[in-house]
Amino acid sequence: MQEVALPDVDSILISAPGKVILFGEHAVVYGKSAVAASLGLRTYAWMRPTGDQTVTLRLPDICSSAIQWDLTALSDFVTSHNVVSSCEPTSLTDNKEAAAQPLLKSIAMVPGARQASLAFLHLYTSLFKEPQGIEVCVRSALPVGAGLGSSASYSVCIAAGLLALNGYVKMPKMSNTAYDATELKLVNDWAFVSEKVIHGNPSGVDNAVSTYGGAMLYTNGKMEPLNGFKSIQFILTDTCVPKNTKAQVENVRIRRVQFGPILDPLMDSMQGISNTCKDLFGALEQSDITLSDVLTGMEELVDMNHCILAACGVSHPSLERIRQLTARYGLRSKLTGAGGGGCALTLLRDDTGVDLIEKVKSELRAESFRCFETSVGCHGVRWASLPLDSKDWMDHWKHFVENRNVDWNILSNI
Amino acid sequence: MQEVALPDVDSILISAPGKVILFGEHAVVYGKSAVAASLGLRTYAWMRPTGDQTVTLRLPDICSSAIQWDLTALSDFVTSHNVVSSCEPTSLTDNKEAAAQPLLKSIAMVPGARQASLAFLHLYTSLFKEPQGIEVCVRSALPVGAGLGSSASYSVCIAAGLLALNGYVKMPKMSNTAYDATELKLVNDWAFVSEKVIHGNPSGVDNAVSTYGGAMLYTNGKMEPLNGFKSIQFILTDTCVPKNTKAQVENVRIRRVQFGPILDPLMDSMQGISNTCKDLFGALEQSDITLSDVLTGMEELVDMNHCILAACGVSHPSLERIRQLTARYGLRSKLTGAGGGGCALTLLRDDTGVDLIEKVKSELRAESFRCFETSVGCHGVRWASLPLDSKDWMDHWKHFVENRNVDWNILSNI
Repeated sequence: MQEVALPDVDSILISAPGKVILFGEHAVVYGKSAVAASLGLRTYAWMRPTGDQTVTLRLPDICSSAIQWDLTALSDFVTSHNVVSSCEPTSLTDNKEAAAQPLLKSIAMVPGARQASLAFLHLYTSLFKEPQGIEVCVRSALPVGAGLGSSASYSVCIAAGLLALNGYVKMPKMSNTAYDATELKLVNDWAFVSEKVIHGNPSGVDNAVSTYGGAMLYTNGKMEPLNGFKSIQFILTDTCVPKNTKAQVENVRIRRVQFGPILDPLMDSMQGISNTCKDLFGALEQSDITLSDVLTGMEELVDMNHCILAACGVSHPSLERIRQLTARYGLRSKLTGAGGGGCALTLLRDDTGVDLIEKVKSELRAESFRCFETSVGCHGVRWASLPLDSKDWMDHWKHFVENRNVDWNILSNI
Repeated sequence: MQEVALPDVDSILISAPGKVILFGEHAVVYGKSAVAASLGLRTYAWMRPTGDQTVTLRLPDICSSAIQWDLTALSDFVTSHNVVSSCEPTSLTDNKEAAAQPLLKSIAMVPGARQASLAFLHLYTSLFKEPQGIEVCVRSALPVGAGLGSSASYSVCIAAGLLALNGYVKMPKMSNTAYDATELKLVNDWAFVSEKVIHGNPSGVDNAVSTYGGAMLYTNGKMEPLNGFKSIQFILTDTCVPKNTKAQVENVRIRRVQFGPILDPLMDSMQGISNTCKDLFGALEQSDITLSDVLTGMEELVDMNHCILAACGVSHPSLERIRQLTARYGLRSKLTGAGGGGCALTLLRDDTGVDLIEKVKSELRAESFRCFETSVGCHGVRWASLPLDSKDWMDHWKHFVENRNVDWNILSNI
């Protein structure tokens, strides 16, 4: 393999948030609305053209060694498979997936890495007119597989980065966050293509929230931005009890067969919660109420929604323990996602003292829960170029690729 | 006052159960059905004609000294107030209540005792054709003021006893428990008269459950016996957090004004729970399912109903603690009554081991809760005569009147 000099182009740094379900999990399965919002824990991708003959994908969070393909193999694959480069979002076909198998041999046994690589390969071969050497590293502050949209934020990052590298979307300089609607739609559509590779049949809400940020009302496949939604502080607590979304959805289905006249009204009640959340932020936008009023309302919604989900049978002793512990400090918590383990959200008010938050977090950690103090409703995807010869680039890349624990603060400007 | 020899009549021992709300508390305020059932903790009254010139009412549980009236004062009151003796249930009028004030002076300041005495006086003066010396002692295994129907069971006891002493209902010998429907209706109607004196505006469900036993579906003032209802074992735990029914009802009212589209479906869901409970026992009566199936269903209903009530905002940390603690042993608990403290029910299965029950009870007690292992759905009022000269009578009466803690087991045959 021939080493060539770095081309005179910039690197791209991309970030995209995770997501949480604020309200209406499970109800959404029965045609009711859920409120999904972006999560302040983000996934970051760094891409740089190398000018060499290799495409390198580094996923240090799920795979210790770099995944590499040489351009000859990729060119052969593209040619043999008549891949036409275009920015028109195109799903991975069964034929193309089959043809890509030889390229995935090395990571076939690494959980998560195979699908992530396949999604990357599909986007790479669809968007590059001609294979070029690039190096990509993706890191995430999100716990993987915790129902927090880590795969969607990965998909959004690689979609945005590969589109930008190929000039399908503008490549702004750092700190310029004006992305136009057409660009965002293109990123979202390609991210959805990637999500389908990873998940099979995703709803599209995760990548939409990760792309656009803020909060959305999701009903029967339709998404509606929640106007007036303000970023809200939460403690996100991972119970570390493995979640099993499929099993929980099945539990609720069975319970609904057995107790329809009890469960159906609970779904209606959750629709009421999602609507009330929308109304609260609508009223805030109209300046009819204050943010403090909204938070007071949200506290009640958090409590009610958790209890209704518990009535659906999807709570867990660890989630109840988090509620009990945080309630002692006047804080309201709810499970988020499928339940039966997984994560809980604890709502913080603007006037919740730092000392109190630290105390609650330390108590939660003392019970072996993982805690993140974060926000919900933050900005969506961002991408920007950073000159390869800048000191920032050199320092950050090294830190980004090599450290087991990334200091996310150094990336806070994207 | 002239002492006269005891007349050659028997004493009467009466017992009546307390009640619990099994399902649908609060929903019942909004026209939905609640399931109320008799509680194995009973109130006992012992009445004996003395032949002397005094009516003595002993309520050792709420008033340390005996309440006494001499027959002259009672005769004057009856004559001055044109009281007509009849077994036709007649409510206390404002005029009669005002006229009775001088007779209540001694216990005007004892909480509970004034209303209990007034109710007794009203029934006594309505049912005795001519005042006669009697002695009455009422004791209860029920915690007073815990929402467990202690006043209703008191009302049922004095109604049954005074009706029996006056021959309006038969006076069976001990162990004969065949009461006819007309007699029970008369007892229930007079107990309701007494309840109105004590509570002002009772629903009538407490005295009906105490009179008839078993379980009832109560909807908008209408009562329907729950056919096929079997006595079920529970641990009843008093949180010792004072309940305030009025405040909790008001909390739910306010929450419903604020969050109608969330709360209204919760009330519908509770209607579904009450209906499902009825259906379960209906199916048991038809032998379509086994008692074990019923209990499995009841476990789910207990869990769901508690969570829905929690969503209505009427749980309390102490109630959640009881749920948490009992859940560790695979047992399901719910608040019963208005919530915000008060009592919790923990469902036991037929195959729940004695050791496990003892362990749970001892853990609950270690947290300063009061625990009773009892049943729900037991028999209603019973009354029977016991010869005054029997050894049983002498021993039991002494024990009954004098002991701070009654050994309820010695009364288990009534």
